[in-house]
Amino acid sequence: MSVPHLTTALRGPILELERRILEAMPTIEHWLRGKWQNYSIPFYCSVDLRNSGFKLAPVDTNLFPGGFNNLNPEFLPLCVQAMMAAVEKICPDAHSILLIPESHTRNIFYLQNVAVLRDIMRHAGMHVRIGSLMPEITSATTISLPDGNTLVLEPIQRTNNRLGVDNFDPCAVLLNNDLSSGIPDILKDLEQIVIPPLSAGWSTRRKSQHFFAYDSVAQEFAELIGIDPWLINPYFSSCGKIDFREKKGEECVAAAVDEILKDLQEKYAQYGVKEKPFVIVKADSGTYGMGIMTVKDSADVYKLNRKQRNKMTKIKEGLPVTRLLVQEGVYTFESINHAVAEPVIYMIDRYVVGGFYRVHTSRGADENLNAPGMHFVPLAFNTSCVLPNHTALPDAAVNRFYAYGVVARLALLAAALELERYLADISDPSLEALQS
Amino acid sequence: MSVPHLTTALRGPILELERRILEAMPTIEHWLRGKWQNYSIPFYCSVDLRNSGFKLAPVDTNLFPGGFNNLNPEFLPLCVQAMMAAVEKICPDAHSILLIPESHTRNIFYLQNVAVLRDIMRHAGMHVRIGSLMPEITSATTISLPDGNTLVLEPIQRTNNRLGVDNFDPCAVLLNNDLSSGIPDILKDLEQIVIPPLSAGWSTRRKSQHFFAYDSVAQEFAELIGIDPWLINPYFSSCGKIDFREKKGEECVAAAVDEILKDLQEKYAQYGVKEKPFVIVKADSGTYGMGIMTVKDSADVYKLNRKQRNKMTKIKEGLPVTRLLVQEGVYTFESINHAVAEPVIYMIDRYVVGGFYRVHTSRGADENLNAPGMHFVPLAFNTSCVLPNHTALPDAAVNRFYAYGVVARLALLAAALELERYLADISDPSLEALQS
Repeated sequence: MSVPHLTTALRGPILELERRILEAMPTIEHWLRGKWQNYSIPFYCSVDLRNSGFKLAPVDTNLFPGGFNNLNPEFLPLCVQAMMAAVEKICPDAHSILLIPESHTRNIFYLQNVAVLRDIMRHAGMHVRIGSLMPEITSATTISLPDGNTLVLEPIQRTNNRLGVDNFDPCAVLLNNDLSSGIPDILKDLEQIVIPPLSAGWSTRRKSQHFFAYDSVAQEFAELIGIDPWLINPYFSSCGKIDFREKKGEECVAAAVDEILKDLQEKYAQYGVKEKPFVIVKADSGTYGMGIMTVKDSADVYKLNRKQRNKMTKIKEGLPVTRLLVQEGVYTFESINHAVAEPVIYMIDRYVVGGFYRVHTSRGADENLNAPGMHFVPLAFNTSCVLPNHTALPDAAVNRFYAYGVVARLALLAAALELERYLADISDPSLEALQS
Repeated sequence: MSVPHLTTALRGPILELERRILEAMPTIEHWLRGKWQNYSIPFYCSVDLRNSGFKLAPVDTNLFPGGFNNLNPEFLPLCVQAMMAAVEKICPDAHSILLIPESHTRNIFYLQNVAVLRDIMRHAGMHVRIGSLMPEITSATTISLPDGNTLVLEPIQRTNNRLGVDNFDPCAVLLNNDLSSGIPDILKDLEQIVIPPLSAGWSTRRKSQHFFAYDSVAQEFAELIGIDPWLINPYFSSCGKIDFREKKGEECVAAAVDEILKDLQEKYAQYGVKEKPFVIVKADSGTYGMGIMTVKDSADVYKLNRKQRNKMTKIKEGLPVTRLLVQEGVYTFESINHAVAEPVIYMIDRYVVGGFYRVHTSRGADENLNAPGMHFVPLAFNTSCVLPNHTALPDAAVNRFYAYGVVARLALLAAALELERYLADISDPSLEALQS
């Protein structure tokens, strides 16, 4: 058992969607091939999906994926092969990479992710060393991991405009750090290529820009295979100049909630969905499920208590929330032993390399599953996302995973578009301006 | 158990070679990345290796690989991912391929290979139909395979300069047919891209040209990682104007055998190898292990009986042998339950996607294992070739397989070089001239 069951009886739309995706496979793969030739593909990416039984949509696209340790080790060769394609682009002339992770020394799960990522790159033939931004790392520090693996964190050294660690001058810097607390000076104006670009960090990136880009991708894809784009695309809106503690900007949020709920009521009626529509309000920048809440009525926006207001005021690293994304909530109707499950798909370059389910025993189908302190159980996919079986039912695991891989790649394409549209021409000085 | 044991005690050189390859992994992968950017990589390729315990070398490089069914099905996703990279190059603007297999309707093993190859391409998002060159296929013919899969062979239709099958106008033609019997007129002067190029077929290709190309690859690689190139490269020579039935050209062969045996005696002495050196004489063009013999003394060349002479006179499809490759014999000292085993490595584009052992119960360590009528047992590799483990012994399976994948890619690179050097500029008229 490792494929969650949809707890609701399977309804028309999702089976129809999976069937359409399956049938259109050559069309889809050909269309994606064309797209990958026209855009710079993010180096790596993970996408949180929600499968509501009537809708399958991305809800978060992470450009600094932190769960490689949750993938099925059997598919490590897929990661290695995809990594070979990815490094060809960034380091044709060299073979050394400095990996800069998040500054967590105590999160063993995260450190295992760093170790797996390092191992994938090493298997792809790269020299990899890990440079830490943490001030307390003043010399090479070995961390033992529960699986017997070890990780060596080293202090980053900057020499003129090059970053390295002791006796190691890498050709590229790979960030596995989402820059939530801004861009450290030590990373600015480097000679070396930095991947993803600094502008992809949460100090400048906005979820709303990602979903604007996703809008056009979903629209084009829906036309390609002849479906209602709503089936793969959540409604959203965004609000700026927010300060929930000071009750600033509430009107914008309430109005956005109202409009989305109204649109959803129509769609739910159209598709015969009986559940109550809901909306997710979350920080427009940032990750780790902080600054996020579920709303089923716009009046609720005005009735937040102090604790809720505080929760919506700051995200990771204490950064203030000044912009919000108001997004259609997508129920997750996948469950394992009554625990809700949410699929997360991993990509390296343009390849889907695996995925896992976040399984939560104590969360509802309308809540975010990637929340601080909520220890989800990762459940690795047991089959790959690239082996659909046309003779099996559309909802067979291999086919559902193929559909997941397709929708995840739409989000990847949106990220490529987003980086080109909104974040490509940002130089360091304007990055700082945008941070305010 | 699925990794053969070396029956001889492991000696110095091979462990040393595997250790060098393992240690130099980033250097090797970087060097290969550079090569793949400078050459057109064959679409697919399989390489027969021999591991003698003191030497690891390719002995045959097949540009029309016919054993995809022998790979571990668990690694099918690796094949699909590599196929996605391969088809990007040939069909960026389309998504349909006509696969032309060998004209064997009764070889179930071969037909399973065709089915697996078709499935890999389909999973990579291609429309694939199978066009048969057999005159008896006059309408779509369904063949049931033992694994429950089916194969539909269709008659090829040519309209002006385009090939297709009923209601199917493909963007490319993929040959899984080595053109041993020459290039059929129906394949000449096509508008569509033909992969591999017609010149890669056995009507024009010569093994000696491949090994000339491999010479320079092996030399450069040996310098790169600091080894004796002989450890990965068999000595060889070639003879033309041969007709064994008429005893024409025997002197050339005998002289070549003498010289190689003399060189081998020196090398065997240098490395303390106790076995008796031997030489393989085989047709310079062609496959299926026909027209091949083992020689331990040049005098034997003159002493062939009628049956042996006949065997060396014709290869597959009755083609006469007029050129011979005289090649250092490499003992295979890998065995499983006392049966000799020979690794075969499969590549799609520049990626090693798997391999298997040919296991023979009735052949010696100095004989060819890919012989007609000799039903080898394929034993799929149980781990991938891309996950070497630096903390394990150099001869651990994962590390040995990595070394196999490296040497196989050297042969792939040689094939790229060979196609560019000898076969690129050959147009149809000169192809015909070369065939004589």
